[in-house]
This record gives sequence, C-alpha cells and structure tokens, in this order.
Amino acid sequence: MVALPWSTLLIGSAAAICTTGAFVPQVLRVRRLRSAGEISLTTFLVFSVGTTAWLAYGFLIGSWPVILANAATLVLALAMVYLKLDYDRGSRRSDG
Amino acid sequence: MVALPWSTLLIGSAAAICTTGAFVPQVLRVRRLRSAGEISLTTFLVFSVGTTAWLAYGFLIGSWPVILANAATLVLALAMVYLKLDYDRGSRRSDG
Repeated sequence: MVALPWSTLLIGSAAAICTTGAFVPQVLRVRRLRSAGEISLTTFLVFSVGTTAWLAYGFLIGSWPVILANAATLVLALAMVYLKLDYDRGSRRSDG
Repeated sequence: MVALPWSTLLIGSAAAICTTGAFVPQVLRVRRLRSAGEISLTTFLVFSVGTTAWLAYGFLIGSWPVILANAATLVLALAMVYLKLDYDRGSRRSDG
C-alpha cells in the first residue's frame, strides 16, 4: 500500500463517516412512520449487494477502513430491506 | 499507484456500479408516487456531502473510477434532495 498524506486520509474518513452514517436517519424515519411504501426495495437490495462487494474489495486490498465502513453500511442497508418487507406486508394485510 | 489484480478491479467496479446505480429506482419511485414523506432529507443531504468528499478524495488519489462513480452518485443524491423538498412543499400546500 502507498502511504497517503494525512489530509487525503482525513477527507476519505469524513467521506466514509458521511456515506455510512447518512442511512441512520432513514432507518429511524421509516421505523417511526411504520411505513415504507415510498422506499424502493430494488434500491436497498442492489445497494446491499454493492456494499457486500465493497466489503470483499476491502478484504482483497487489506484496507480496514473500507472493511469497517462497508460492514456498518451493510447493516443499515439490510435493516432498510427488512423494514421495507415488514411494513409492506403489514400494509397489504390491513388493505386486505 | 499500486496495480491491483484484475479480479480485485472487477469486484471494485461491480461494487461501484451497484452502489451508484442502486439510487436510480429510488429516484424513479419517488417521482412516480409524487410523494417523499418517508424519505429522510437528512439522509440525502449527509449522503451528498459524503459523496462530494469521496469525489474530492478521488481527485486527490487521482482515481478516475472513484471520481466518475461518485459524480454519478452525487447527481442521484441531489435529485433525491430536490424531489424531497419539492414534494414536501407540494404536500404542505395541499394540506393547508
């Protein structure tokens, strides 16, 4: 691995914290509303697959920041998939 | 830059295509429903900031794949911010 300047590492860390942490309020909002009709299942399924691929990439290049950031993002993306499936099933039940 | 094996680059490319392309169906779903009440504004604002930081990181490490993937993701994240603000304003108008 080539050592990067600290300023570059700082920007990369800030980027990782933002793009991972960003999904916390989305998970909380859907949980609070107990509704996920506007959430795209395809988005969070494909995003989960992509995050898993980033996780594999992190292991292949031996980068702990990439591994940790994507492990956290994967948990949040899978939480969105779970909430979407759970609330959509609930809304179909109450519709029917 | 250290040259990575083609299998690692393939997994990284697949990861980038998934985590960027994932947001296309979310943008389309919100546009089709003309409603974004369940979408978290904070999520897509913080995600836009994070993607901008990844874009800067891409320039700093001189990686075109990182630059291109994050430029595309930024467009989609900002589209979500725009649609959220636009439809929430519309729903407040029709509520009031």
